This record gives sequence, C-alpha cells and structure tokens, in this order.
Amino acid sequence: MPDRILDAHTSDPKTMGWMEGLPPPPGKRLAWARADHMRFPTHRHAFSRMREFLPSARVGRGNAVWELPVSLRDDLDALRFTTLDDGRELTWGESLAANFTDAILVLHRGTVIYERYFGTTRRDTPHIAFSVTKSFVGTIAEMLVQEGRLDPAAPIADLLPELARSGFADATLRQVMDMTTALDFSEDYTDANSGIGAMSNALGLTPRAPGYAGPGDVYAFLPTVRKQGEHGERFTYRTCNTEVLGWIVARSEGKRLDQVMSERIWQPLGMEQDADFLLDPTGMPFAGGGLNPVLRDLARFGEAMRLNGQGHAGQAIHAAAVESIRAGGSRAAFAPAGYTYLPEGSYRSQWWMMPGNTGAFSARGIHGQTIYIDPAAELVIARFGSHPIAAGSGNDPVSLPAFRAVAQHLQNG
Amino acid sequence: MPDRILDAHTSDPKTMGWMEGLPPPPGKRLAWARADHMRFPTHRHAFSRMREFLPSARVGRGNAVWELPVSLRDDLDALRFTTLDDGRELTWGESLAANFTDAILVLHRGTVIYERYFGTTRRDTPHIAFSVTKSFVGTIAEMLVQEGRLDPAAPIADLLPELARSGFADATLRQVMDMTTALDFSEDYTDANSGIGAMSNALGLTPRAPGYAGPGDVYAFLPTVRKQGEHGERFTYRTCNTEVLGWIVARSEGKRLDQVMSERIWQPLGMEQDADFLLDPTGMPFAGGGLNPVLRDLARFGEAMRLNGQGHAGQAIHAAAVESIRAGGSRAAFAPAGYTYLPEGSYRSQWWMMPGNTGAFSARGIHGQTIYIDPAAELVIARFGSHPIAAGSGNDPVSLPAFRAVAQHLQNG
Repeated sequence: MPDRILDAHTSDPKTMGWMEGLPPPPGKRLAWARADHMRFPTHRHAFSRMREFLPSARVGRGNAVWELPVSLRDDLDALRFTTLDDGRELTWGESLAANFTDAILVLHRGTVIYERYFGTTRRDTPHIAFSVTKSFVGTIAEMLVQEGRLDPAAPIADLLPELARSGFADATLRQVMDMTTALDFSEDYTDANSGIGAMSNALGLTPRAPGYAGPGDVYAFLPTVRKQGEHGERFTYRTCNTEVLGWIVARSEGKRLDQVMSERIWQPLGMEQDADFLLDPTGMPFAGGGLNPVLRDLARFGEAMRLNGQGHAGQAIHAAAVESIRAGGSRAAFAPAGYTYLPEGSYRSQWWMMPGNTGAFSARGIHGQTIYIDPAAELVIARFGSHPIAAGSGNDPVSLPAFRAVAQHLQNG
Repeated sequence: MPDRILDAHTSDPKTMGWMEGLPPPPGKRLAWARADHMRFPTHRHAFSRMREFLPSARVGRGNAVWELPVSLRDDLDALRFTTLDDGRELTWGESLAANFTDAILVLHRGTVIYERYFGTTRRDTPHIAFSVTKSFVGTIAEMLVQEGRLDPAAPIADLLPELARSGFADATLRQVMDMTTALDFSEDYTDANSGIGAMSNALGLTPRAPGYAGPGDVYAFLPTVRKQGEHGERFTYRTCNTEVLGWIVARSEGKRLDQVMSERIWQPLGMEQDADFLLDPTGMPFAGGGLNPVLRDLARFGEAMRLNGQGHAGQAIHAAAVESIRAGGSRAAFAPAGYTYLPEGSYRSQWWMMPGNTGAFSARGIHGQTIYIDPAAELVIARFGSHPIAAGSGNDPVSLPAFRAVAQHLQNG
C-alpha cells in the first residue's frame, strides 16, 4: 500500500504500532540509519521522540511554572469554514485530521479553552518544532539588538569572520534575520542535493551516503554557501540564515544556543518542561529547526508574544523586541516569493506576518508546526503536526481559514 | 604528555576546555566516532552530557519534589583516614581529587550536610551513573517479585523465550538478579573483544569497526551469550545479566524500561529532574549502565533505600523488596570472586553488601559512580566520578576508608 493514500487515521502511529514490542518486530522498527524519523508515515511516531534518534542537549526550565488556567469549551469542534484551495466545507474538528495534527492547544485571553493530543503525542511529550525554532532564535536576536549587543546593520563578516569568504559576508545581520539574503541555497526538502539536503547531511539530521566527504558539521557547512544575486532585495526562505543567526547569538552571548535559550526564554517564561535541542556532530544546536518543546510551552511563548513580552512573572522579553517583530518586514520584498495564501504578508526576525490586517503573526514549521497569534482576537494557537508534506505551507489552505474561523468566533463572543 | 600522569586537577575538564568555543578548536572537539566520551581524560567532560553523544530517552519526574533539607557542615573536609592499599594518610577533602570526583553529596538523617560539584558537573547536570543503574533495575525487579509478578525461581527461557537457546536459558531469575550465572562473557573494559566490548558495540555505546557484522542491538546480542560452567555456584560480575533483567522487567510490565523507571522510581520518589536513559539502536534502554540522573536524585534513591522504601510521600518502594536486598546474597558464592577490599561482602539483586557488619550496602559503577548507604550511621553518600580506570573497584582503597571515616565521625556525634 503506497504511503500516499494513508490519511491521518490509517497512519496513526498508535495504530501502526511503530516501535511497539520488546523488541519491536522487524517491520515495526524505526532506524535513524534509514531516516525513518524524517519520512511519512514513520515520522508520525518519531516527531515526539527525536532525542531517541539523535544527540540532543537539554534546554533547562526554571523553578517556577507559568500556570495556565484551563476552561475548556466544546463549541469549537463544530465551527465551520471553507478551505482555500478546493473550497470544501470543513469543521474545526474535522480539520485536525485533515492536517495530521499531533497536538493542538487554543489559548483565549490566556486561558486554555481547547487542548487535544493525538497519536503518541502527550502533554509531557516534547515534539519537534522544526522551523518554529527559528522564531525563538529570531526573538532572542531582537532582544540582543534592543540591548545594543548586536547591530542589525553590521555585516556578517564582521560578526563571524569564519564567513568572510562565504556568500553571507556582505549581508547585514538584519538581512539574515529577515531572510533577504541572496544565496545559492535551495530549500527543497524533496531533493537530497539541495542546499537544505546538504545542510541536513552536515548536521547529521539524516544519514550520510557511504563515502560522504562533505562538511562534517554546520560550522564547516556555512562557509561553503555562495552568494547568488544581491542581498536585501527580496525575501527567500532559507534555513541556513537561521544557522548563521544562531551562531551569532551564541557568539554574542559567549555560550551555546541551548544555554542562551534556557536563560532567555525557558526560565523567564516559566516553561513546565525542559526542551530537547538537537545537536550537530560538534555540539551545535540546530537553530533552524531542532527545538523540541512540549505543546504548552509552545503556547506560553506565543502568549508572551501576544502580551508584548509579558510572562507570568513580569516582562520576560523586551517589549521593544516584540514591537520590532510585530511591525513586520517589507511586503515588497515578500511578495515576489509568491506565497499564494499569504497575500500582504511579510517576514520579520524569523516570524511570519499574516494576511488580513488583524495584526496576526505566526511561527511556522514544516509538517504543520505552528504558533498562531491573533492579538485582535486575544488568541494563541499552538500546534504540532506530522503532515506527509514537508512544507511550512502544506497546511495553509485548511489551517488559515480554520484559525480565522476560531478568531472570528471568539471575537463574536 | 601521556594521559596517565594527569591528575584530577590537570585533567579538570574546565581547565582542558573540551568543547569550548563556537566552534571548539579542533584539538578541543570530542566525537562519539572516536569514543572520546568513553576515555580519559575527555570522558571527564562527556560524563555529564552523554545525551549530547548518544540517543536517549527521558525518565520523567512527577509533579512534586522531595525537598531535602540542607545544613552544611565544614568538619568533613579535615577528616583523616588511611588508604587500604598503600597506607597513605589522606583527608576527606583530599580524597575527592584522588578519586577524580565530579560531584558528591552526603546525607545524614536525611539532611544534606555536604555537597560539592567539580569540573563541569553541576547540581542540574545529569551524569552517567554507569552500573549504579543496575541497582535501580534490581530494586524494581525485587518489587515485581514481591508483587508476585515475577517468580525468582523461573528459568530465563520461560520469561524470555528469545533466550531459550542462549546460555541464560536454564538460569533462574534469582541467579540473574544475583549474578550467579555461569556465562562465556568477560567484563574486561580494556579488551574490545571481551563480552562487554562486544555488547558495547551492539548497543552503540562505542563506535563499530568498519565492516562490523555483529549484533545490531542488545536484543540481538543477548541470545549469542553462551553458558560456561554451572549456574548458581558463584558470583561473577557480568553486565549482560542486567540487560536480561531489564528486558524481563520491561516485558513483565509491558512497557519500556525508561517508562517503568519513571513510574516505579522517578515519580514516587519526587525526583527533582528528569533523568536521561541511553538507548541502543532499537530503543532499548541500556539497563546495565545507561541511566543519567542528577546527583540529588541519586541521593534520594539512596535515602529511600535507607528508610526501607519510604520516600517523601510515604512508602514508595515495598519494604519487603528493600528487606530482601539488605538481607544480602551468598557470601560463599561471592568470596571466590576475590574482591580484596570487600571481605565478607555479597551481591544481591544488583546491590553490593559491604564489609564491616554495619549493614552498609552500595550501588557501584565504573569510574567511581556510587551510592553508599550505612544505616547504622544514618548516612547516604552519592557520588559521581570520572576516574581514569574503568573499574567499579578502582576507587575502593581510597573511597571505602573515607566513607567509613565519615560514618564513624557521624556516629560519634
């Protein structure tokens, strides 16, 4: 049976029984060496236990937990909306399976009004956030800019002399943060020879071919990226920018990114669990996609962003940093990238500004990882997914109208 | 400079600067592929971050923490004792460096009276416990025996049909628990071709030689162990027994050992941090040595054993299970093993009974990992170490008289 016709129910990792049994029978075993953790449908099991496949560091929580009040509502499941591509009518409840949702939580005015876990993901299971990781890194970078520790106008060659001969050299920090760099690096997840494929090999996320002689880690990979075009002209989504950004943040702080993440985000925001941060072979955290938090901690980060940086114990993220992000990036630079479902969108400091003039913004990762923040609706949605398609936008035709339907419903009372 | 002449100070991982720098300079990088995490002096860095080198599972703590009162005393450092081998006089304070101690904590009547962290080990850093892991597994097995879920007289072939053709087949569960099995398996850590070397390859703890065609995981390795002699006659320390025991515990409970460890020990004992449990390529936790707790959680386990199974919230481990362990194993079976520093000792359910008729017992791991419990002195000592010698007994000539000196000192008031 080809994988394509599996839906969320037939591919449910609990039904599939991946890794069940002591030992699991041969057909149910997943192996890093076969990249089972990175392909459908086996990734539906692996995404909530990536540390079992890869080396990882602990992002430590603090002592106090940000308690989230809970008052569950049962009126969301029946909410109806129309998909953006084929105009189907779906309910919110139906949309969860349509999107291969592993876990989803809705916060309204800071209260948990909806929380569901599917497959083998649980409240206390960290799940890979993929590119939602970028928004954490971008927010920390904005904090350092606000503190005067980083100059957004500085060329990368000055911040990281190791990249003086790379395509990043004459890009500014701001261009890296906003992904308006012009680089010979393709973000095609289906092509092992693309830039992202090569970087994935370098960082050990996927197994290397026999005789592999490429870069042995991300530090060695980044200097090989070449320039292609002129920096600053248009937005192009390339994960290598975030690896550079994470490196800059770490060097600025004089400590590894997992430690910075703990000090700047995990402890101040009262996260309830440690997070796992996947590491490359030289111990560099995978800044572009390697963070694994639990769902509620993803939601806490979103709520703090909605509250202009306020956490449970006062200002945790500088208000000016949040303001800089929410002001958005250049729409003119964003438009040529051609995101059908994000008209009038932009990208700023590793965050996506959403269409609709509601001020909504989002952290987005492949396979459906999301933080969606709609300040007008006092709404935060946190979601983990294991969609078969490795694209951040794979869920948009279903997810975006679903999120908007919830926002409107909440605004209507 | 050969490694041998490095002492605890010159090999301090902080001084050595392993993995420091972004990136670390080539001479300071540690790699799993070179087994840097398993050899002196680089292991002094790696032992408190093994999850950064290997796949691991989370052993989840519960919600409530067992608070340990703290009342530090400054009279221990000057305590004097005489080493058992060369008759040197040392102070307790001096003994810490002599033993390459990474972290040590002394509980007296449940109060922390001494707590020190060295090198790069900290209060919130999990450290590999090596064979101290075995005592956790043995205690859980004793609990299952007390609950009637496991029969200590059952032959292994009945409990694990996969081992029906192995040397374990006609051994009883009790013989596996007490390591009185007779097997063709050598525990020589310096010989890559020994039983422990082959098992280490199978579980992926150390890198495999090119073209390796041996067992791909522990499940595949254990059936290859052959019988040598008669079971039940004498104690011989072999880690493969604990792998079998962990497998039996997991099968009995119908869940993986990391989950059982969380439910049976970590949650009921109010551990303050999650632990990391190293996994083999098929996700089997390394029952013989792969648990990485923080020091205080090691101490909590020791304290519960001292208190006949009582934790912060009542009986956490069946009193009868603790009683069975503290009754000790056969001294006649133990004596031929020739442990010079453990006269009148014995081994029971993965715990070591100490000499001296004080009822002291201990969990012991290579490179100095220890829980030492002296009920008469109302004393628990928890220690992590990174001694150059990979033996459980490498520290004994210094550690045993040091522990006894503390016990006597406390008993004298």
